[in-house]
Amino acid sequence: MSRIEFRTLVSLEEARKALLPFYKRETEEVLLRDCPGRTLASDIYSKVDVPGFDRASMDGYAVKSGDTWGADEESPKTLEVTGIVHAGDRASIKVEKGTAVEVATGAVMPEGANAVVMVENTDLTGDLLNIRKPVSPGENVMHTGADIMMGELVLKKNVKLTPREVSVLAAIGLDRATVYKKPRIGIISTGNEIAPPGTKLDTGQIYDVNAYGIGAGVVENGGEPVYLGIVRDTPQEFAKALSDAAAQVDVVLTSGSTSAGASDMMSSTVGEAGKVLVHGIKIKPGKPTIIGEYGGKPFIGLPGYPSSAMTIFNEVAAPLIRYMAGHRERAMREVTATMALRVTSEGGREVLLPVGLTMTSTGLAAYPVEKGSGAISQLLDADGYIEISEDTQIVKEGDEVSVRLFLRGDRIP
Amino acid sequence: MSRIEFRTLVSLEEARKALLPFYKRETEEVLLRDCPGRTLASDIYSKVDVPGFDRASMDGYAVKSGDTWGADEESPKTLEVTGIVHAGDRASIKVEKGTAVEVATGAVMPEGANAVVMVENTDLTGDLLNIRKPVSPGENVMHTGADIMMGELVLKKNVKLTPREVSVLAAIGLDRATVYKKPRIGIISTGNEIAPPGTKLDTGQIYDVNAYGIGAGVVENGGEPVYLGIVRDTPQEFAKALSDAAAQVDVVLTSGSTSAGASDMMSSTVGEAGKVLVHGIKIKPGKPTIIGEYGGKPFIGLPGYPSSAMTIFNEVAAPLIRYMAGHRERAMREVTATMALRVTSEGGREVLLPVGLTMTSTGLAAYPVEKGSGAISQLLDADGYIEISEDTQIVKEGDEVSVRLFLRGDRIP
Repeated sequence: MSRIEFRTLVSLEEARKALLPFYKRETEEVLLRDCPGRTLASDIYSKVDVPGFDRASMDGYAVKSGDTWGADEESPKTLEVTGIVHAGDRASIKVEKGTAVEVATGAVMPEGANAVVMVENTDLTGDLLNIRKPVSPGENVMHTGADIMMGELVLKKNVKLTPREVSVLAAIGLDRATVYKKPRIGIISTGNEIAPPGTKLDTGQIYDVNAYGIGAGVVENGGEPVYLGIVRDTPQEFAKALSDAAAQVDVVLTSGSTSAGASDMMSSTVGEAGKVLVHGIKIKPGKPTIIGEYGGKPFIGLPGYPSSAMTIFNEVAAPLIRYMAGHRERAMREVTATMALRVTSEGGREVLLPVGLTMTSTGLAAYPVEKGSGAISQLLDADGYIEISEDTQIVKEGDEVSVRLFLRGDRIP
Repeated sequence: MSRIEFRTLVSLEEARKALLPFYKRETEEVLLRDCPGRTLASDIYSKVDVPGFDRASMDGYAVKSGDTWGADEESPKTLEVTGIVHAGDRASIKVEKGTAVEVATGAVMPEGANAVVMVENTDLTGDLLNIRKPVSPGENVMHTGADIMMGELVLKKNVKLTPREVSVLAAIGLDRATVYKKPRIGIISTGNEIAPPGTKLDTGQIYDVNAYGIGAGVVENGGEPVYLGIVRDTPQEFAKALSDAAAQVDVVLTSGSTSAGASDMMSSTVGEAGKVLVHGIKIKPGKPTIIGEYGGKPFIGLPGYPSSAMTIFNEVAAPLIRYMAGHRERAMREVTATMALRVTSEGGREVLLPVGLTMTSTGLAAYPVEKGSGAISQLLDADGYIEISEDTQIVKEGDEVSVRLFLRGDRIP
């Protein structure tokens, strides 16, 4: 591929589309305790009846309902109590005409009985039980399979497993479920000036911000970050890091080294043993993004500036990770605000402009937050961003704009 | 304490208040990679300047700005290029009057230079650089501390750590942060009829639903579930399970054994070596709830029926767990619907009535979902619940009701 071809900038939409061949899901079986938050990868049919036996649903006495008919406060019916069944007992005792068996909530209904008289409607004197209210057949009994029937479809594929769904899996006796695998996302930081947090910086060095910011984004979107460290931007080191990564993860992300020379080096290294699909997105920030394939795995080379890296991560990588993990597309929260300042754009490419929001007497006002290239504090001061299309050159003061909100770290009181 | 005292039913509000002495938080230090989703437990002041040096913010040439004044397309200024500084290099070279040093984005500004001319505004012939556009002092340079100043408060205590906050921690060189500890929540299932999922049931047995449903709820609310297994409801076994639990977890939850006899046994066992604070909540479902203290740890005895256990877990235990974990109070999503059927309540206690929702031509309709005591399928069919106050006996067909939505497991397409 020629250098010119690489440099044909594509739209954000086309960049996302380049990754479509990698929108695939794998599955794995996990224990119930590991199910919360995962997405079910198969329909679940019950292999058992729930309950598995006719069950007393009240504390009271198992009887033949006919024996209670006509009972009232004035003229109770009297039965002989011949035994007791606790919850969890096998019911070896039988209810004959004229007799009753004490049962606890959840106990197996003894043979011969077809209803339970609630303890509140009885008096016991020795073995003799006075029943003051009749019961109809089936009253206070939950029949075998009445809750969930054997063979019933109880959970559909692709449902997210919350406490309710996990409860249902347990109720039908499953101790594990097949869910979508969390994609393993390899994260490489490139650049000769990058040093890991927790170390002392030499002159000219800066801390590796992106590995951890992107790692947190991977977690938030249902993936498992695999931190692969910092790589100098020489073709040898980069090629080795790429092939090590591709061998052990599902998606390879890098950030940094997106100055013209380093970016061309990365792109040609990817191209040598893989394929460059996109080199350059027609968007600010994020122009130097590279998308490709390496060792059969998708490769996304994010810009180096933290706010640019996070923006392109959210727009391009996050949808892929969410798909693989079986998470829903993220609902974008938007609010309408009034532009507080005039903003001009060069035009010719889309701009995602970070803005802060303030509440004024006339509603929400949006003001641009541009702290200079690569500023970290921009991440903290911006509440979201507005999209300025390729054809728009000016957003006027007072114009109504739609602000896509960042997910921020809300504070607890 | 007398038995009568135990049996004074309290309101849901009073039940929650009984736990207030246990609303405490502990902290721990975790690595950056474990920060996502946790809540910061201290204010963070930067111990470094960011950037730590005057930094070129564009690819280009470091110059004395005065040397460029008057430059334009027609009459460029010419300087001699004496060297290059890459990102990450120490800048040992000095810019003298009449000279320029090539710099990459992110590189240290060489001594003597005070601005960067963008590469786009220059031509290089051999060592001679023609500059076609002047720069002012400081142009394309990010000064030491301009992004974040040493001593600056960058993150406030109690903020939830999303990718943005994690990025900021990394940027100031921290490789770990102090966050609120995830409370360890011990989960015990009680009852002679309970068997673990994954085993074969004997007659009379049912699967342990609550341990996993509640465990998933614990995860959802920021706690760490500790599964302590199934305990028979004898005083000896129960007392042993309680003291084992209290020794290793922060909160002890049980579910089940809430028939009158077993409930009294549990309450008196808790009372013997601890303190019973609440025995019975004036609410349906959930009346047999026990709240107490055992071995200095809060104890919550949830009802046995899964939907009752989850309701009381959500209303009483979840707020405590969220507080301990430093999570925000959960925002309850509510919708307004029209009651599709008349519902009567006994009165005298509050009722949380599960309802399903359907969309009709006149809007959302709510219909009661009551599948009989202890039905699991109720968890799947109900979309939320309405609150019927103590004094209300009838909700009429056509009445407007406010439905609090369950968090459901949404399906992906």
